[in-house]
Amino acid sequence: MTTRYGTRPTMKDVAARAGVGLKTVSRVVNGEAGVTSDMTARVQGAIAELGFRRNDSARLLRKGRTASVGLLLEDIADPFSGQLSRAVEAVARAHGSLLFTGSSGEEARREQELALAFCARRVDGLVVVPAGDDHRYLLPELAAGIAAVFVDRPAQLIDADAVLTDNVGGARDGVAHLIRHGHRRIAFLGDLPHIHTAAERLSGYRQAMAAADLPVDEDWVVMAPTDPSVVAASLDRVTGGPAPVTAVLCGNNRITLGVLRRLPSMVRRPALVGFDDLELADLLTPGLTVVAQDPAALGRAAAELLFHRLEGDHAAPRRVVLPARLIPRGSGETAP
Amino acid sequence: MTTRYGTRPTMKDVAARAGVGLKTVSRVVNGEAGVTSDMTARVQGAIAELGFRRNDSARLLRKGRTASVGLLLEDIADPFSGQLSRAVEAVARAHGSLLFTGSSGEEARREQELALAFCARRVDGLVVVPAGDDHRYLLPELAAGIAAVFVDRPAQLIDADAVLTDNVGGARDGVAHLIRHGHRRIAFLGDLPHIHTAAERLSGYRQAMAAADLPVDEDWVVMAPTDPSVVAASLDRVTGGPAPVTAVLCGNNRITLGVLRRLPSMVRRPALVGFDDLELADLLTPGLTVVAQDPAALGRAAAELLFHRLEGDHAAPRRVVLPARLIPRGSGETAP
Repeated sequence: MTTRYGTRPTMKDVAARAGVGLKTVSRVVNGEAGVTSDMTARVQGAIAELGFRRNDSARLLRKGRTASVGLLLEDIADPFSGQLSRAVEAVARAHGSLLFTGSSGEEARREQELALAFCARRVDGLVVVPAGDDHRYLLPELAAGIAAVFVDRPAQLIDADAVLTDNVGGARDGVAHLIRHGHRRIAFLGDLPHIHTAAERLSGYRQAMAAADLPVDEDWVVMAPTDPSVVAASLDRVTGGPAPVTAVLCGNNRITLGVLRRLPSMVRRPALVGFDDLELADLLTPGLTVVAQDPAALGRAAAELLFHRLEGDHAAPRRVVLPARLIPRGSGETAP
Repeated sequence: MTTRYGTRPTMKDVAARAGVGLKTVSRVVNGEAGVTSDMTARVQGAIAELGFRRNDSARLLRKGRTASVGLLLEDIADPFSGQLSRAVEAVARAHGSLLFTGSSGEEARREQELALAFCARRVDGLVVVPAGDDHRYLLPELAAGIAAVFVDRPAQLIDADAVLTDNVGGARDGVAHLIRHGHRRIAFLGDLPHIHTAAERLSGYRQAMAAADLPVDEDWVVMAPTDPSVVAASLDRVTGGPAPVTAVLCGNNRITLGVLRRLPSMVRRPALVGFDDLELADLLTPGLTVVAQDPAALGRAAAELLFHRLEGDHAAPRRVVLPARLIPRGSGETAP
């Protein structure tokens, strides 16, 4: 493979073909002053004949920056990640920066591997949806000048910028909504408890129940993987048994999907509020009531904060919290 | 910003701190033989103290490769793109390669700008969902050894690898399915006609109608932008007027969404087959019948072909065509 790359013409080749010095070629390529129009035309002719293209990586590395940003997601195929990515890309584009993307698959080891691989390519900054719970591995990179903004979940064990949804408030609103519609026995089906957003949403659930003086049967709280079969089993458990719930708050979009797929086979369907919106949520029967995050707003705010940092904003790490919004559509407004 | 990057320790700093030669540090950093374990320990100690990190970009550039691939999508937030991206990322990861991603937004100019920006960073290869209709701008890059595989749509005016869905066959199957259920007046709502997949699917529609000896009223064919309001107006037109259709084939997932949002306000709902599957399609009432592509299989095949090329496969450009699959769920099986 090395030989294939060897075929690229260099600035030296251009200089030889044009019969000018290397410095003159460099000036023309980089749009610097001090070259006569005649010389410029000769150099441009040689560039066109040889098919010479400037090597931005080499050029940028010499300048000490790469005009690239690393975006670390949980899973690029998740609709939440897709909308967040589009927003980050738009901001990066406005700043003339390209985007590396990678998915951690919710694995701490993979997150670290990817983040350090991006850093080793000398990205100017990182936008990270973290999977791990110890981000001290980034300290040497931050000390060396790489900027990092965490999004959706905060960094752990280091002090870093974070752009988050108000997960506690959102879950509290969702449960309060079910309580207002007469529900007293409400389940919370959440993701694994070490995931920051899952823990926060559980906390919002507990706050809303406590605020209404409602006891929480610990059998109603399931923190488990989001595979459809696991979710179906959890739903069966909380709606069966001696103290069946009449309503469910789903902790994220994958859990909501698992519950929606299970509902048709149930005799008594619980009322339902999902955390995260879904594309066809309004077209279901009944429509799906959700606590919606705004992934595009999260991505935009994180990317803008990142570029502020790159432009020299060295103030203390900031935490930006965006609201979640309850959207009633039918599934969360049925009586017990 | 330059000064921030200046704080990174170099191999020279490590050599000075360890009191060894530069060559020794280089050998330790690159895992080469010929260094005593005592020396290795001293170098590693200095590396840890200084927080030295190898610069992969500089190292890879010297080797003439960058272990990175550029993935050019139409829109990273589209679920089709998300699944395709995840598959490309998995293959790239297996080859130790990182991924640049970017969205053309269906603009030829933006596609070219991004593709050339990736090339200027010396990506080893490109996976491109093309927006434009003239890819000759890539010829100098291909000549210089960058590999490129087009996916979803073929390259135009250059001969290049392509991994495509059988769009003609898929659309033909979808329309034949509606005909089997008694429909004679069938509309095709497609994307803009210059988009390869849109033109191919229209062609499949015409083939199925011709095969069943059914005339096509040109008012039944609408090739237009996919904004919900435009789709709603098109649907109203083909289902109203003097020769209203009783069934509709939607040309892609965005058009299907527009139609689904309009249906509830219609008195007589046409039978419906959508091209592209949707996450909640099976949970709608009725379930949505689709001609499903397999975006993950497209991405995987494209990325695998790309790495074959990078590993030295110089055979003539290849065209891989993957089947589309009809999934009946209710909306396409109603009588006229």
